Amino acid sequence: MTRHDHAGRRARLRALAAERGLDAVLVTDLVNVRYLTGFTGSNGALLLRVEGSDVFGTDGRYTTQAGTQVPDVELLVDRATVGALARAAAGVGRLGYESHVVTVDGLRGLEGAVGSTELVSLRQAVEALRAVKDADEVEALRRACTVADQALAELAAEGALRPGRTELAVGRELDARMLALGAEAPSFETIVAAGTNSAIPHHRPDTTELRAGDFLKLDFGATVDGYHSDMTRTLVLGHAADWQTEVYALVQESQAAGRAALAVGTDVTAVDAASRDVIAAAGHAEHFTHGLGHGVGLQIHEAPGISALGAGTLAAGMAVTVEPGVYLPGHGGVRIEDTLIVTDGEPELLTLTSKELLVL
Amino acid sequence: MTRHDHAGRRARLRALAAERGLDAVLVTDLVNVRYLTGFTGSNGALLLRVEGSDVFGTDGRYTTQAGTQVPDVELLVDRATVGALARAAAGVGRLGYESHVVTVDGLRGLEGAVGSTELVSLRQAVEALRAVKDADEVEALRRACTVADQALAELAAEGALRPGRTELAVGRELDARMLALGAEAPSFETIVAAGTNSAIPHHRPDTTELRAGDFLKLDFGATVDGYHSDMTRTLVLGHAADWQTEVYALVQESQAAGRAALAVGTDVTAVDAASRDVIAAAGHAEHFTHGLGHGVGLQIHEAPGISALGAGTLAAGMAVTVEPGVYLPGHGGVRIEDTLIVTDGEPELLTLTSKELLVL
Repeated sequence: MTRHDHAGRRARLRALAAERGLDAVLVTDLVNVRYLTGFTGSNGALLLRVEGSDVFGTDGRYTTQAGTQVPDVELLVDRATVGALARAAAGVGRLGYESHVVTVDGLRGLEGAVGSTELVSLRQAVEALRAVKDADEVEALRRACTVADQALAELAAEGALRPGRTELAVGRELDARMLALGAEAPSFETIVAAGTNSAIPHHRPDTTELRAGDFLKLDFGATVDGYHSDMTRTLVLGHAADWQTEVYALVQESQAAGRAALAVGTDVTAVDAASRDVIAAAGHAEHFTHGLGHGVGLQIHEAPGISALGAGTLAAGMAVTVEPGVYLPGHGGVRIEDTLIVTDGEPELLTLTSKELLVL
Repeated sequence: MTRHDHAGRRARLRALAAERGLDAVLVTDLVNVRYLTGFTGSNGALLLRVEGSDVFGTDGRYTTQAGTQVPDVELLVDRATVGALARAAAGVGRLGYESHVVTVDGLRGLEGAVGSTELVSLRQAVEALRAVKDADEVEALRRACTVADQALAELAAEGALRPGRTELAVGRELDARMLALGAEAPSFETIVAAGTNSAIPHHRPDTTELRAGDFLKLDFGATVDGYHSDMTRTLVLGHAADWQTEVYALVQESQAAGRAALAVGTDVTAVDAASRDVIAAAGHAEHFTHGLGHGVGLQIHEAPGISALGAGTLAAGMAVTVEPGVYLPGHGGVRIEDTLIVTDGEPELLTLTSKELLVL
C-alpha cells in the first residue's frame, strides 16, 4: 500500500482554514478523514488546528489501527468520538465544521459540546482539495483501472460472455476476477445489462440470459488502495444489426468529443455540452438522460460533477469519467465510459480497453 | 427475491405519524426508503401522507427501476429529488423529517422548499419499525446466515485454512465462496485475523501468514435479498495451548450467557451485563472493549444496540448479534458471534456453525 502524503494534505487544509479566518476545523466525513490521515476504520474524526497540534479521534475498537495508520497525529480514544473532539475544540474562536455531512441532530450535539465557540460551515473544502489528485493517487487509480481492463480481457478471452449465461453469473465472475487480480472490492455494484435491459442506465444484474444479437452493457470498476476505477463497455453478442452499429457509432463519437473537451480551465458544463451536442444533433437528446461524468478517487462519485448543472472548471490532476449514453427503451442502450486524468496537455486515459464495437 | 410487504410497513408508519400529530413524513434515509418501498437504487425518497396518497421520488436514471420495484406508489422523477418532494409537501401543516439523516445544509434546502410547513423531527421512527422483523425478513436472514455457515464449512473441509496462507487470501476465498453460494455481497469487509492480530477487534486482513499454534479469528457475513448475516468464529491452527483453551472457554461461556439472556422484555443493558459479567468475574473486564451486540437486517448495524450504553428492551422478532470477545494485546484474542432472532420462547439461532473450539 502506498504511503500517501497526509501531512501535506493537512497543511493545505490548514492554509485554507487560516485564509477563511477559522481557528480550527472539525472533519467528520469519513472519506475526508481518510484523505487527511490515512485512517480506514468506520469511526474517526480529525480536529485540525490552524495553530497548535491536531487531534485524531476514534473509539476503542480502533486504538491499534489508529496507531499504525495515523502515527503522526495525537490520538484521542473516546466512544463518543465527535463529541470528545468538539469538547477539545471548546474555547477556540471559530470552528469550521462540515455542514454538508453533519446532520441536524449532530449539529445540536456539537453546539452543546463547544460552548461559546462559533460554528462555521467549512463548505466542501476537503472535497475541493481531493478533486485534484497527487502523483500517488493517480498511480493508485492507474492500478485500479488496469485491474478492471484485465478482468474484462480475461473474461472475453475465456468465452465467459456468451449466450445462455445470466447477467448475475457474468457480474459475479467479473467481481471475482477483479478480486483475484488484486482489487480490494468492486468499485460499486457491477452493472451487467443484456438485451433490452441495456436501455436501463443503471440496471441491476438479474437472471436475464445473454442472447445472440443483443447488446451487453458492462459498467464496473475495481478499488485499489482505496481508489476507484470506473469503466463502461457495450458489446454485441453475435451479429450486430444496423441500428446497433449506428447507435454505437453515435455514442462513440460523442464520447470522443467529451474526452477531447477535457482541458485545464474548461467549464464542466462545456465538457458536458461537447459530448451531448453530438447526440442531440442526431435527434437523440431525450435518450441521454444523465450527466456526462464525475470525479473519481476515494469515492466512486466525487468532485467535479460534469453535467449541464455542474459548476467550476477543470484543473490539472483531476480524475474524471466521460460516459455518454443513448438508451432506447424496449430496444437497448449503449454507454461508453472511461476514467481519465486532466493534464496540461492531452488527458491521460486510464481505462485502456478498446472502444471499438466488440462483436463476440 | 422475496416480495416484501411494503404497503403494510407504510401503513404502520402512517399510524405512527398520525399518533404524533404529523400530516406527512419525508423519508430520505435510503435504507428506510428501501424498507418502505422496495427501491434499491442510490437515490430515492418517500413522501408519506397521513391522508392522501404517497409519492416516491427518484431521478431519471431510475425511472424504469422505480416502475418495477415500486409499482404501488405514485412516481415523481426529478434530478433534485428531495427538493421536489418537499415542494410537493408544501402546504401540509406538520411534516416529519429525519433529523438524524438530513444534514444541516439539507435542512436549509428543505426549509426553502416547504414554505410555511412546520418541519418536525421524526426521530428514528422507521429504524424502530425496522428493528422488529417480519417473517419474510427472518427468512432472508436465515438464508444469509446459511450462506456464511456453508462458505466456512467448505473452506475448512478443503484445507483452505492452513499455515502459510495469508489473511488476505483467506478473506478473498471466503468472500468468493459466499458469492458463489448466492450472496449478493459480503455483509462488510471480512475480518481475518491471525496470531497476535486476533487481539485487534476489527483487524483488516493483510499479508500476515497463518501459523501453526495461532488463533485465527474470522468475522464475516453474507448479504441475501438485502439482509445481512454476521458471524465470528475463532479457531486454532494445530495444537491449542492451555491459555488459548482457557480464553476460548471463557468467551464461550460469556457468549452462552448472552444468548440465554435474549428474552422479550429484557433491557438491552441487562443482556450486555449477563455476558460481560462472566468475563469480568474472570478478571478480564478491560479486555472486552466493545458492546455485546447489535441489530442486523437491511444494515449490518441497526437497532437495537446491545451494550451498557444502550436503551430499550427486546421484542419478539428482533434480529441481533451476541458477540463477546477477550483481546489480549500482543498475544491473541477470541470473539464468538452469532446472529439470532428474539422470540417469545428460546431465541432462534441462525448461524449454525459449531462454537466448540475448532482445532484445524
